[in-house]
Amino acid sequence: MRMTEAFIKTLKEEPAEAEVISHKLMIRASLIKKLGAGAYTYLPLGLKALRNVERIVRQEMDSSGAQEVLMPAIHPKELWDRTGRFDLMRDILITYKDRHGKTCVLGPTHEEVVTDLVARSIRSYRDLPRILYQIQTKFRDEPRPRFGVLRSKEFIMKDAYSFDRDAEGLDKSYSAVYAAYRRIFDRCGLEYVIVEADTGFMGGDVSHEFMVPSEIGEDIIALCPACGYAASADMAECADTGAGKEKSGGRESEAVKEVRTPGLSTVEKVSEFLKIKPERLVKTLIYKYDGGAVAVLLRGDHNLNEIKLKRHLGCEVLEMADEGLIKSVTGGPMGFSGPVGLKGVDIIADYSVAGMTNFVTGANRPGTHLINVNLTRDFKVKEWKDLRYIAKGEPCPKCKKGGIKLETAIEVGHTFKLGTKYSGRLNAGFLDKDGKDKLCVMGCYGIGINRIIAAAIEQNNDRDGIMWPVSLAPYKAAVLPLNMTHKESVKIAEKIYKELLENKVEAMIDDRTESAGVKFKDADLIGYPVQVIIGEKGLAKKKIELKTRRGKKLDLVSEKDVIKSVLSKLMV
Amino acid sequence: MRMTEAFIKTLKEEPAEAEVISHKLMIRASLIKKLGAGAYTYLPLGLKALRNVERIVRQEMDSSGAQEVLMPAIHPKELWDRTGRFDLMRDILITYKDRHGKTCVLGPTHEEVVTDLVARSIRSYRDLPRILYQIQTKFRDEPRPRFGVLRSKEFIMKDAYSFDRDAEGLDKSYSAVYAAYRRIFDRCGLEYVIVEADTGFMGGDVSHEFMVPSEIGEDIIALCPACGYAASADMAECADTGAGKEKSGGRESEAVKEVRTPGLSTVEKVSEFLKIKPERLVKTLIYKYDGGAVAVLLRGDHNLNEIKLKRHLGCEVLEMADEGLIKSVTGGPMGFSGPVGLKGVDIIADYSVAGMTNFVTGANRPGTHLINVNLTRDFKVKEWKDLRYIAKGEPCPKCKKGGIKLETAIEVGHTFKLGTKYSGRLNAGFLDKDGKDKLCVMGCYGIGINRIIAAAIEQNNDRDGIMWPVSLAPYKAAVLPLNMTHKESVKIAEKIYKELLENKVEAMIDDRTESAGVKFKDADLIGYPVQVIIGEKGLAKKKIELKTRRGKKLDLVSEKDVIKSVLSKLMV
Repeated sequence: MRMTEAFIKTLKEEPAEAEVISHKLMIRASLIKKLGAGAYTYLPLGLKALRNVERIVRQEMDSSGAQEVLMPAIHPKELWDRTGRFDLMRDILITYKDRHGKTCVLGPTHEEVVTDLVARSIRSYRDLPRILYQIQTKFRDEPRPRFGVLRSKEFIMKDAYSFDRDAEGLDKSYSAVYAAYRRIFDRCGLEYVIVEADTGFMGGDVSHEFMVPSEIGEDIIALCPACGYAASADMAECADTGAGKEKSGGRESEAVKEVRTPGLSTVEKVSEFLKIKPERLVKTLIYKYDGGAVAVLLRGDHNLNEIKLKRHLGCEVLEMADEGLIKSVTGGPMGFSGPVGLKGVDIIADYSVAGMTNFVTGANRPGTHLINVNLTRDFKVKEWKDLRYIAKGEPCPKCKKGGIKLETAIEVGHTFKLGTKYSGRLNAGFLDKDGKDKLCVMGCYGIGINRIIAAAIEQNNDRDGIMWPVSLAPYKAAVLPLNMTHKESVKIAEKIYKELLENKVEAMIDDRTESAGVKFKDADLIGYPVQVIIGEKGLAKKKIELKTRRGKKLDLVSEKDVIKSVLSKLMV
Repeated sequence: MRMTEAFIKTLKEEPAEAEVISHKLMIRASLIKKLGAGAYTYLPLGLKALRNVERIVRQEMDSSGAQEVLMPAIHPKELWDRTGRFDLMRDILITYKDRHGKTCVLGPTHEEVVTDLVARSIRSYRDLPRILYQIQTKFRDEPRPRFGVLRSKEFIMKDAYSFDRDAEGLDKSYSAVYAAYRRIFDRCGLEYVIVEADTGFMGGDVSHEFMVPSEIGEDIIALCPACGYAASADMAECADTGAGKEKSGGRESEAVKEVRTPGLSTVEKVSEFLKIKPERLVKTLIYKYDGGAVAVLLRGDHNLNEIKLKRHLGCEVLEMADEGLIKSVTGGPMGFSGPVGLKGVDIIADYSVAGMTNFVTGANRPGTHLINVNLTRDFKVKEWKDLRYIAKGEPCPKCKKGGIKLETAIEVGHTFKLGTKYSGRLNAGFLDKDGKDKLCVMGCYGIGINRIIAAAIEQNNDRDGIMWPVSLAPYKAAVLPLNMTHKESVKIAEKIYKELLENKVEAMIDDRTESAGVKFKDADLIGYPVQVIIGEKGLAKKKIELKTRRGKKLDLVSEKDVIKSVLSKLMV
């Protein structure tokens, strides 16, 4: 491509609309252009990078045994009703009524459609296993579109779905896709960690996230520097798991006493008023779930992990109780709940509460707390569980050593063992060898194509611009004739450009009548892995300069060695 | 690919849901599967064919100088308001309100978005010309989805947009894309004609449609077998153009007379009642347009071409007058309008009326017609125009010879010279060499990717199935070991399959333990261009059978010649 003909408009200034580096560089280097909130056009340079990712994803998915399909973006609501996800995900679903009054859903994911497809396609165990995938635009009514293509209203996903005869089959399919994902992210030049993750809207019981550590990530992962343990913060177990279970009791020195605490409905306010640390308080949270209400006890300075609670309760819907429910469960107002005297509701407590004595709780009466409360003597806990988020510096749940690190990360891939949740609801069954009707055992697997681009740029940039991994670079080499009025420079540049193309190197020639400075700046910003610099001074010495973008290494080579040198630099 | 692992389920029976051959074969050969009305999943075989089309389109668009981008599918309504097309196209637009109450449009086409993009990207004449294209899913609230992927709610378009400095630039860009289109349809193996076409919703003044003649086509094209003239029926001029203009007058023999025709409000009823042919009647149609009302005269047996009328009036909106407007314009009821005594409204007449004398018209009074009406004597025509559809057998407007043929055709491509309609409304301007602000002169160009598949199948099939053009075939060759229990057959089949893959021939091996008959039927249905048939009988004679799908030619070759022979057959 010739710079004079390319649809490329780089920007010198940082765009006001962008907060994070990848977003800024994608706009400045003319990879994307904003249409509206959370909606971006991929310009030719950006699309070339995107297609490079797609090609890698396609190759590795194919080699994992998956087969590519393309499902409709518009789904009938009826399918979403059958899995119950229309209500569950309504908040982010984009829907419209067609001319016949039928409600349609713009697919944010395709479990419903693919399961229905397979249900209507397969009959026998001989038709299994199958892994289907597609690369397609997904839609969601994003509450907070931001960070450019990292969180947008429409985005390109590679979504895959495996269908197996049984759990062992699923294990195999899952491993195959998992291995393909590693190859994909490796080839894309990303540094990433794989963590155990929550299954969320998807359901199922095993899940892994492929996370690119980055300060702009919206997810938090817990890492152990000692043993390499990695988990999403949602899933990271706390090391005190089970340790102090019911070890309390017997140290109660004082009788329970009431204190007046009017208006002091938070841990902070109470601990300040009583001049004790928050970890001496036990907070009592009332939650509503499919199975009724539950009281959850947590140390004052700890944070409830709703995902863990949901998992333990085995429920689909979980929400904090409102004022009315709290009143009916505890007899008292919000902010003053406590375990003492609670009736008709189960008490579940986090393990860390087990070691506490003489603590403070709400009294289930307005403006009143209790001090010197003790386990067993004053109330009974039905179940002890790990219910909180792990905190920075805590021991690792695996090696028990080291201080856990919490890092933010960008999720670029997610895999789930779904089991029969969808095949059951959408009748995706088959006749097994033994003549019995069985349900397909499913897995699902997603990769955010756009996010790979943004994550790669977050991990590969310097003050001058993008430093593309060769595999993703829109053009692998740029030819820069520094002075377009110097005929010899132009002639040699054109010759090298032509030879690069003949050697299948995707190359750009900057044939603009711009200054050398402008050409250098644009080449660094756009991030071609190799620059072939043709200047009068060098030519006088029969030399051409090769610059590697990463590390800014400069080599002087003779004209006849240029192509060979470029090719060898791109092989790295 | 191995048939035992492929996601392929062919059908023996014709699917009830399909009316036309391509639709039936696409379902039977397992290319697509229906999700709902006008919504299909592309299965692996169908998607491979689709990707083959996309690859050809991409190569030829790139070589025409166009650059690929990817614009959002979700558009802000505001852009559509600025071009006035939100109201104009509202009927087929899919819209929804997002969580912030903002109306969004799902793009059925991208003139608005691309023009806005270019308006915010370019500044100088040096930035022009540029041609941008994308291959993307489009959406429309289709009133009558049918014929499978030929008319569906979502479809894949290649849409391209050219931006030039002036009309000469547009001519060049238009020619470049036009030539690319010819190469694309040629490479896809389609027989097609290029016709002048109406610009419709797009606007602009020059337009061509690329039409694949087919009995299931929804468009009608007029062809002259003598000189090769081709035009869409919407655009085909009538040969009597101007011929008889106002030649009437002087032959009036009788005075105008009233006849009572109660309830006879159609040409058919009146001609039957008066026992005269419909061509002796002149029908008077009252139309409403941006500029007011107009009365249109047409010979009784002719059909008004609203597109021609719209063009002549130069209006954006045109519709038949309702009862109220007819009453106020003519003083009479609907069905009894006539030119005699009409006041305050212009009369435009089709050329064919010019030669008529002593004809019948409505009387602008209930249940009354006039006979022996004559031009000039009884009323005056303001303008004479070509306003009707050409009919089968009429003389060719170009060579004046031959009987025009009317054929149905599938539109696979459409090109438009848009001029400055969009650049004007969306401020896509640039600073020209002479220092003056000018508007980009635009063209737009569409190809229906899915339609190419359907059209190719309509033109390439027999009773046994699809006969793919090699360029589009999902797999180019099938290896058929007829008896999977015969070890020698299987061994040789596997060897040939492996060698085909090594020679970069996309091949399928039918390794199922099915009968030879089932394998032949499926191979013919799916339409592999070449079948490599490995049977015991042949092997006994050291021969392998090669079957060409098109023409069903059979060749016996020795094992060592198989690959060479397959490759040479695929070169055709």
